[in-house]
Amino acid sequence: MSKVFVNIGLSLDGYMTPEGMTIEHWDRPEYKNWAAKWGKLMGWIFNQQYFRENLKLGPGGETGPANDMIRRTTERIGANIMGKRMFDAGERSWPEEAPFHTPVYVLTHQKREPWVRPGGTTFYFLDDGPARALELARESSGGRDVRIAGGPDVIQQYLNMGVIDELEIALAPVLFGGGRRLFENLHEAVSQFRIDRVLDTPAVTHLRYVRE
Amino acid sequence: MSKVFVNIGLSLDGYMTPEGMTIEHWDRPEYKNWAAKWGKLMGWIFNQQYFRENLKLGPGGETGPANDMIRRTTERIGANIMGKRMFDAGERSWPEEAPFHTPVYVLTHQKREPWVRPGGTTFYFLDDGPARALELARESSGGRDVRIAGGPDVIQQYLNMGVIDELEIALAPVLFGGGRRLFENLHEAVSQFRIDRVLDTPAVTHLRYVRE
Repeated sequence: MSKVFVNIGLSLDGYMTPEGMTIEHWDRPEYKNWAAKWGKLMGWIFNQQYFRENLKLGPGGETGPANDMIRRTTERIGANIMGKRMFDAGERSWPEEAPFHTPVYVLTHQKREPWVRPGGTTFYFLDDGPARALELARESSGGRDVRIAGGPDVIQQYLNMGVIDELEIALAPVLFGGGRRLFENLHEAVSQFRIDRVLDTPAVTHLRYVRE
Repeated sequence: MSKVFVNIGLSLDGYMTPEGMTIEHWDRPEYKNWAAKWGKLMGWIFNQQYFRENLKLGPGGETGPANDMIRRTTERIGANIMGKRMFDAGERSWPEEAPFHTPVYVLTHQKREPWVRPGGTTFYFLDDGPARALELARESSGGRDVRIAGGPDVIQQYLNMGVIDELEIALAPVLFGGGRRLFENLHEAVSQFRIDRVLDTPAVTHLRYVRE
């Protein structure tokens, strides 16, 4: 069966996004210094050849083990699940050919028709809860894996459901001091994990955990 | 000059101690399951030969790279600084020959005479603030380094003072879901770090960061 996994960047102090990085301040990167902070978190990925190619950011880029990892991760995904806030931010940022090339299930209370993008990405807007979204994602994944893309609240819901098989974290040596934490609101009986693999790079530490 | 460093165990969700691990529940390890959780965080170190020898836990233990690292870390320490809560817990747990073998400055508001232990550990109880404690620790360290031992609130004070040169974190693949977080209450202008070294072991990931 498809694996369910998370693959995200995390600040050393546990935040997925810095304070101030919200839709309202999307056009004010200087607000609370959010863009510089986020750059310290995710800058490394914009230097990777496969990521650049996928987001149409232009040629060039590194082709080492981090790049291979991004390629493997991207190619294993058969469906994505994300929250409405992440979708709203992405809608303003992704190129016309959104970088998923799979069905993407957006957890929202707003009704909206599916949104088909060139390149094989279709966004489906669901109001039936995370369990139903996972069911649909599995069914449509063609036997490949399901990525819980984010944000933190969505990942927390799936962690608490005990369905996350793998946690992949790119831990960046930056302290945000505030923002949206990944690990919060977890129930007592949340899944536990073991270390599966560590990839040590100068910019971030790639940590891969598998559910016990 | 002496370096100032932190060397601690951290749960994957960012806690130094699980909920329920307080003096009041020291004799009730089943309370909120604190002892089992802490075991998942620190169990690895009780298997290391140098740690066992230093705490008089008996012979044997692993002698690999993690053990070498503990030895190097212990030998570089010329003075320790800790909070009153950590001291109180340790006072109930350390062997008569407390495992520091250096001056230890305890930040507290309670007055108490220095407490001399066999084996070279003397605890000094200070009510003059963290900056003064660091000054005394440096002066008495014999040119070796100063360890900020904990707890989280003490480490946060020194992080906010911008004086921590090195952060050494043994990141364990356990989710506590609650407890005392390391990275909290940080000011906007807190120091930033770069990755210096990663040691990948099956039980924990040893991450070493150096101030930029």
